[in-house]
Amino acid sequence: MPPSLAIVNIGQLVTLGGPARPRVGNELRDLGIVENAALLIEDGRITGAGTYSNFKDRIPLNAMLIDAEARCVTPGFVDAHTHLVFAGNRAAEFEQRIAGATYQQIAAAGGGILRTVARTRAATEDELLAAARRHCDWMLRSGTTTIEAKSGYGLDREAELKMLRVLRRLDEEGPARIIPTLLAAHTIPPEFAGRRDDYVRFVAEELIPEVAAAKLAQFCDAFCDDHAFTVDECRTVLTAARGHGLALRIHAEQFRPGAGAALAAELGAVTADHLETVTEETLPQLRAAGVQPVLLPGSVFCLRRTQCPPARAMIDAGLAIVLATDFNPGSSPVPSMPFMLSLACLQMALTPAEALTAATINAAHSLNLGDEIGSLEAGKQADFLIHECADYRELAYFIAAPMRPRVFIAGREVTG
Amino acid sequence: MPPSLAIVNIGQLVTLGGPARPRVGNELRDLGIVENAALLIEDGRITGAGTYSNFKDRIPLNAMLIDAEARCVTPGFVDAHTHLVFAGNRAAEFEQRIAGATYQQIAAAGGGILRTVARTRAATEDELLAAARRHCDWMLRSGTTTIEAKSGYGLDREAELKMLRVLRRLDEEGPARIIPTLLAAHTIPPEFAGRRDDYVRFVAEELIPEVAAAKLAQFCDAFCDDHAFTVDECRTVLTAARGHGLALRIHAEQFRPGAGAALAAELGAVTADHLETVTEETLPQLRAAGVQPVLLPGSVFCLRRTQCPPARAMIDAGLAIVLATDFNPGSSPVPSMPFMLSLACLQMALTPAEALTAATINAAHSLNLGDEIGSLEAGKQADFLIHECADYRELAYFIAAPMRPRVFIAGREVTG
Repeated sequence: MPPSLAIVNIGQLVTLGGPARPRVGNELRDLGIVENAALLIEDGRITGAGTYSNFKDRIPLNAMLIDAEARCVTPGFVDAHTHLVFAGNRAAEFEQRIAGATYQQIAAAGGGILRTVARTRAATEDELLAAARRHCDWMLRSGTTTIEAKSGYGLDREAELKMLRVLRRLDEEGPARIIPTLLAAHTIPPEFAGRRDDYVRFVAEELIPEVAAAKLAQFCDAFCDDHAFTVDECRTVLTAARGHGLALRIHAEQFRPGAGAALAAELGAVTADHLETVTEETLPQLRAAGVQPVLLPGSVFCLRRTQCPPARAMIDAGLAIVLATDFNPGSSPVPSMPFMLSLACLQMALTPAEALTAATINAAHSLNLGDEIGSLEAGKQADFLIHECADYRELAYFIAAPMRPRVFIAGREVTG
Repeated sequence: MPPSLAIVNIGQLVTLGGPARPRVGNELRDLGIVENAALLIEDGRITGAGTYSNFKDRIPLNAMLIDAEARCVTPGFVDAHTHLVFAGNRAAEFEQRIAGATYQQIAAAGGGILRTVARTRAATEDELLAAARRHCDWMLRSGTTTIEAKSGYGLDREAELKMLRVLRRLDEEGPARIIPTLLAAHTIPPEFAGRRDDYVRFVAEELIPEVAAAKLAQFCDAFCDDHAFTVDECRTVLTAARGHGLALRIHAEQFRPGAGAALAAELGAVTADHLETVTEETLPQLRAAGVQPVLLPGSVFCLRRTQCPPARAMIDAGLAIVLATDFNPGSSPVPSMPFMLSLACLQMALTPAEALTAATINAAHSLNLGDEIGSLEAGKQADFLIHECADYRELAYFIAAPMRPRVFIAGREVTG
């Protein structure tokens, strides 16, 4: 890597510069756009971002120059909610559901999440890593440079640790940054059927301490809903995790109101994810506790639901919304963040600017990385995209277009 | 190009072989799949497709071998309804609509289709060609090898001819095959406001004869709906076109039932496109006349409509459905055929197999190219895709995934 890199002839530089905290309210629409801009990078970090004429004299003579051809440059996408690691896929179930099979019928035939659990348990660590690489490659191609990824298809000690080791290896081999989350409280594993309390105790008292000690996860998540874990069970798991130094995320109120959002506030979780059925009365609690809602329109789309999270009410309530894919083999086999921008606009009436903020700087804050990534400001790691369009709004507007951004992570181009 | 090309180690070869006519009823689910297969190509044409062990002895010693790595191979997609050529985009309107602006407000501010008409008229032929190439590249990347494309943003002699010349140049420069359609009856141009009859007469009596004589279009289309042209106006235009040797397509019943489908049957149109509001009583007329419905879920999705065309009733009525993108800057800025497979499954409950048939062999028949492309059978042009997955169902299931198929047209690989 040359010591300095200068991206010049940027038609529209979307810096997302601003306060050193998540963006709320009208700040979500303020992208800090600079036209006729340049970006200066030294040793993988941004040292200048702004109007070309203002700092062209600072570009070192030996800098490597890249011509952005008047295109749009944005921060890399930060996908703050994924289930990146799993074996097999559920394309056959996708077909069965179209043909009219219900979830219950599919589950009765051995399908659904427990099919993925069985395949993930049976896979070797190297097989899982290869599958995760494929998913990760799709995300990188779409411009995602940082990926939160959860365990939760293992549901026993060995398989949960295996998933988390895959995430560590994926992070070490790069180029994407992987943020690992323990989601052992995803569903009750078959061998604990009828013994829910035993499983919750195993997670809280055995698995969490071991994972925390091995530093295999930064966050702990729990799925709080009727078919998953109760509020009390989630409290047990997440309180244990907090005690072991893990930060918290919660799958909350996807299918039933009253399940989880208040718990997120009570425990000081960093995020409450899904929230399709959350009531507006709950939103002030989230705000008071600084909980960021993570909107997941991919699963709303794939499940053909008509109920979306109340994104506008969340913004009006001062919440720092985040947008993520929920990539998983069942309810959201959708790896693309640009497609999430489109869905957020069409489903939830976010503007393209609000969606982009939610997918970058706010997502970075939700991973406790708001000082490191998510915007193009001096001092941050140089994770950015040179898009195949001149205006950031085209990313949401040209739906499912196979644009190929040039992707840079820490100042290094990672795709050709 | 070497004289022979052999694709070996194909895990799943989707031949779509079958009768030499569009597929109806249960035929739509019969993909003619061969496992452990190979494909033999000579001089750009398929000379063998089937089980590897059955014809490996026929592979010439000097054939170029390509290892499909156990992946899925299908015919290239045939996109039978696009508005590929236009200047500018309408990302700003996309944003205005999200913010609550109505179509009427946008039109009153100079937006909507007439904005694209103004920009397309103002563009040079080379500028239009460059814009069309960008759209065409996206389609190629997604695996589309044949593209029907319409005029209709010119609406005067010069600009309509300019659009059609762009399509001819795009076809000549390749690699995609472009099938041009005259759609002068797209909307009433501003200079004919209050003089509808004069515009219809101009199209029928001046433009169609000139376009037909210059062989600039193979099809003529007309937009039959409340805000576009009446049934009688469309009859005038399309009858003139038929008299000059053009085959017919119709935008029918997108917003209002009773507008166009019966006319398609009366005139023997090859296709009736959209049909979101068509009534089931009309379907037997389409069947009797051999009209193929072209389903366009992209515009249903982008306009956030809840009413889809009655695809299952169409199949039950024996119609040979087609699936296309409707790629255009207003109601469907969506270039990807794989995403249409996903939408067709989610919106209209087509199975992945039905959707794939509608997007390949049936689409080929709707362009009068059913003998030439759309399936992988001996004698056909070798337009095919080596997908980045093992099972064709993954194309619909992994929604908006940036898979990169290897694309071959006439036996030549066109993307790396």
